[in-house]
Amino acid sequence: MPRFSSTPDLDLLFRPRSIAVAGASTNVDSPGHDYLESLKAQGFTGPIYPINPRAEEVAGLKAYPRLADVPGQVDLVISCVPASAVLELVEHCGERGVRFLHLFTGRFSETGDDDAANLEREIAASAAARGIRILGPNGMGLYHPAGGLSFRPDLPTESGSVAFLSQSGNNAVEVITRGNARGLKFGKVANYGNGLDVTPGEMLRYLADDPETSVIGAYVEGVPDGRGFFEGLSAAAAQKPVVVHKAGRTAAGARSAASHTAALAGAAELWSTVLRQAGAHEARNQEQLLDLMLGAALLPRATGRNIAVVGGGGGRSVQSADACEENGLTVVPLPDDVREKVRERAPQLAGWIGNPVDQSILAGSGLSSNGLLELMLQSDRYDLAIANVGEDWFFGRPDAGDRLKHACNRLAEICEKSPKPVAVVLGATETSNREHRQLVDDVRDQFTTRGIAVYPSVERAAFSLGRLTP
Amino acid sequence: MPRFSSTPDLDLLFRPRSIAVAGASTNVDSPGHDYLESLKAQGFTGPIYPINPRAEEVAGLKAYPRLADVPGQVDLVISCVPASAVLELVEHCGERGVRFLHLFTGRFSETGDDDAANLEREIAASAAARGIRILGPNGMGLYHPAGGLSFRPDLPTESGSVAFLSQSGNNAVEVITRGNARGLKFGKVANYGNGLDVTPGEMLRYLADDPETSVIGAYVEGVPDGRGFFEGLSAAAAQKPVVVHKAGRTAAGARSAASHTAALAGAAELWSTVLRQAGAHEARNQEQLLDLMLGAALLPRATGRNIAVVGGGGGRSVQSADACEENGLTVVPLPDDVREKVRERAPQLAGWIGNPVDQSILAGSGLSSNGLLELMLQSDRYDLAIANVGEDWFFGRPDAGDRLKHACNRLAEICEKSPKPVAVVLGATETSNREHRQLVDDVRDQFTTRGIAVYPSVERAAFSLGRLTP
Repeated sequence: MPRFSSTPDLDLLFRPRSIAVAGASTNVDSPGHDYLESLKAQGFTGPIYPINPRAEEVAGLKAYPRLADVPGQVDLVISCVPASAVLELVEHCGERGVRFLHLFTGRFSETGDDDAANLEREIAASAAARGIRILGPNGMGLYHPAGGLSFRPDLPTESGSVAFLSQSGNNAVEVITRGNARGLKFGKVANYGNGLDVTPGEMLRYLADDPETSVIGAYVEGVPDGRGFFEGLSAAAAQKPVVVHKAGRTAAGARSAASHTAALAGAAELWSTVLRQAGAHEARNQEQLLDLMLGAALLPRATGRNIAVVGGGGGRSVQSADACEENGLTVVPLPDDVREKVRERAPQLAGWIGNPVDQSILAGSGLSSNGLLELMLQSDRYDLAIANVGEDWFFGRPDAGDRLKHACNRLAEICEKSPKPVAVVLGATETSNREHRQLVDDVRDQFTTRGIAVYPSVERAAFSLGRLTP
Repeated sequence: MPRFSSTPDLDLLFRPRSIAVAGASTNVDSPGHDYLESLKAQGFTGPIYPINPRAEEVAGLKAYPRLADVPGQVDLVISCVPASAVLELVEHCGERGVRFLHLFTGRFSETGDDDAANLEREIAASAAARGIRILGPNGMGLYHPAGGLSFRPDLPTESGSVAFLSQSGNNAVEVITRGNARGLKFGKVANYGNGLDVTPGEMLRYLADDPETSVIGAYVEGVPDGRGFFEGLSAAAAQKPVVVHKAGRTAAGARSAASHTAALAGAAELWSTVLRQAGAHEARNQEQLLDLMLGAALLPRATGRNIAVVGGGGGRSVQSADACEENGLTVVPLPDDVREKVRERAPQLAGWIGNPVDQSILAGSGLSSNGLLELMLQSDRYDLAIANVGEDWFFGRPDAGDRLKHACNRLAEICEKSPKPVAVVLGATETSNREHRQLVDDVRDQFTTRGIAVYPSVERAAFSLGRLTP
């Protein structure tokens, strides 16, 4: 199937000046209605044209019977028409000089049906002949808050510099909402579904040089053009951090990928090698993807692997040490310069205290975890740090809420002024005590608002720091 | 140091009829106050005697200057006195015929100080000569809601049959509160700190035959007697599921364990072998510990490894398949009997639908994920199942809350009546949308109240099922 050999200007895909929605629907529980509501919710500033032969108005917008009836230029058409109506739509797009056609429409090659796969190829050929680029089919399409684009009405309107490419729309929703709750602000997101024409490799090449993008994530089930993907990935990873979650690694996963996006998924080991050679970070699941994107977006790069760990009781200290060492970080013992400073302020602890710092032995000493963290970050011996908040300890004390907020505020100040990366560990809010749950939520939101990277477990913090440190 | 060769009756340790707290304090921010408040909060029904030479009353209870002044029999003494006062306390315990002494008191061998280690040995010898068993030192002690025991005022009062042994008190707090929020109801919990006298091996032998206990978890940094531990573990694992989180696996972790509980931590591989030979499940971190305990406590055992997976969109399906296969479960394709039943109700899907079931292709077909799950569970081809709720999909629809609650209620009914294990996957509430967060919390609490096992990711569900299936 014909492809463009050089990277086209995908800017227009993410910044169309006008959009038509083919298959616009008055049914509020349908995609043909959702796309209109989504564009309105994101404040798309250009004209939006619902195409519907039977309605005067859809979602409060004046509707047009056919694309030919639309008064102005159309840069992007979003298709919610059935698969059988797409060939005709491509013709109409050609007549109106439409440059980009996003096919939300599915039921093509992913169904495993030969006729459907043939139709998909016909569509590709017809679009190519007319100079129309296709995103999809079988993909949820675009989210770009700065350009007013969205594929769901409930996605955040705040814009940032994290780009994400996804072969699965629902997966992108999860990544955007879960990432956003942790402080990841997204810019350009594209769901490319079957990847018939605009490929992930092509989008990676575009994002490599995109000044709006500082970190790139990708969810890939399979790629239509292996070489193009590798080239795009290498180009992007040379410019900015790229994290790739490759799914469909197992036989059953590959079978499922084929019926999801008609993707040809490959062997896990081969993919790991490819990602490493391209300079990308590999994530094995969505959690790792989010954790690595978060670290890449919010934390400075460490210049070495010697880690300081503070906070939590003795058990957490032991677990933190295991997690760090098992992720390739070195938990170096407390150096003499720090120990001397401890001796000045709490002589009885100087011989006992270690790295990780066990918070429970500090009680009444005049030294806090935060104080120790500051001393350790000042030492040349340490390149990066993990700070366990240890909220469960606070909940056993009087005035738990005030103390927790005070300690977290102090910790946030240390994180903000540190040139070395500090990952904060704050529990997963798994408690049946609603008051405690709320407190942890509030404190986490505080960190997140200040742009501090918070991980729900020390293992996940150590994993991310271990992978992101060169 | 002298040890009892046969298992003594630890029942009295968990069901003392009366308790004295040595070092009871009027300072509300001290352990000597906390223990009294904890016993009151758990509704301990026997007499509680605060020992304090200067106060008339502590925490609203009549105080006594010395243990000798207490009017009745004392089964258990909880010590919050300084290390230097413990030898004298042991003498007093001997004079009053006290059987169990829990030493919260720390700063012994874990400090690395020779004099402190010698004192610890002297205490052990003195207690043994007087027939007093010691729990600790340097341990938070007991939680047993049915017996009215607790070491923190804020722990759940609801009682259950999950036992937990922990070398770290704060770790136990996390395990109890996080487990409880997910539906784990704890019975006997013991924090044994340095494990000077009552060892984890001894407690495991006791719990093996304890009719109050159906599942056992343990957090171990190191064990004082390797052979005794192995024997206790084997005895317990022969009777009921046992999950062990061994920490201090790395050099830094072992160093930290030594300064935390004076534990001699061993090599990770050796421990894995020991746990496997004893028939216990190994957890590498607290998350795995909780996930495995949850599955062991709430799910029936599967009789085979063929898994049915439903729910979530196409991306989740691919990721679910990977997670299952990578955890030793077999995602068998949809068998003919189930496919025929699909054909009767939704002919257009019969050739396309697979296992995992992609929820997004069901829209408008008259078949739901729950309907498919029921059909698959009825088939002999499947031994167990994972049901992804896919809450993010609901949040994009109108009436999301009502629909989500309805679907989850239906799913809960299926779980309740299924003789095969069904693990539910419901997201980690990571969204900045407070309304959605609340909805997920409510729905999760509903499942939990009904005794259904909920995992925050499909990977964690697959890990637990993979490990727990024989």
